[in-house]
Amino acid sequence: MTSYLNQVACHEQGIAPAIAVAATPDKLLMQAWVNREALATAVAEKRAVYWSRFRKKLGRKGEESGNVQKSTEIRLGGDAICYRVKQIGGIACHTGRANCFYQRLENEAWVTTDEILVEPE
Amino acid sequence: MTSYLNQVACHEQGIAPAIAVAATPDKLLMQAWVNREALATAVAEKRAVYWSRFRKKLGRKGEESGNVQKSTEIRLGGDAICYRVKQIGGIACHTGRANCFYQRLENEAWVTTDEILVEPE
Repeated sequence: MTSYLNQVACHEQGIAPAIAVAATPDKLLMQAWVNREALATAVAEKRAVYWSRFRKKLGRKGEESGNVQKSTEIRLGGDAICYRVKQIGGIACHTGRANCFYQRLENEAWVTTDEILVEPE
Repeated sequence: MTSYLNQVACHEQGIAPAIAVAATPDKLLMQAWVNREALATAVAEKRAVYWSRFRKKLGRKGEESGNVQKSTEIRLGGDAICYRVKQIGGIACHTGRANCFYQRLENEAWVTTDEILVEPE
């Protein structure tokens, strides 16, 4: 197997965290997971590809919604990989928000702070 | 147990990914892990606290190096939490680099692109 894939520390079930960051300006979009197949596919197709723990299959971001993440760079840091992407449509979250981190901890409760920009189908 | 802790999806060994982002400007610093104890401690102490999978204990970022991550906000997104922090010393990585994602994938190899700013002890 290609060496760069083996250098990603995959723990449980051969998966590692994958973090998507918008390229310009720098903006945290989402966290999901990759296995080696997802990462190799992302490299081949120059887009963010994840491994769905729930559905147990590859997921090309934006496959259904059209909100593709075009990968401009892939980075490795500790246990995780980072996709630096151009987020097509400006919507990274399946809830129709710009990013998935739309809840903030306030007085020991998660409070939704970000509005839905596009109503999900 | 406090409800906000139960709302963090903890998978393997009760841990979840924790991503640290510098507050201004937005900059991905590192990815590590939290369990509920780490997250509750972070909330109480207003600093990034992680769970070391390797050492099997809590780690307060900067405990030894002084490069504390003062937490300004904690967010939840999918399976992960995000610490938005003020990175004291400007060094998030134990290698003495500004952030941990200092390797970039180039022609199927991880290439170090970021320089060491402070020689680690």
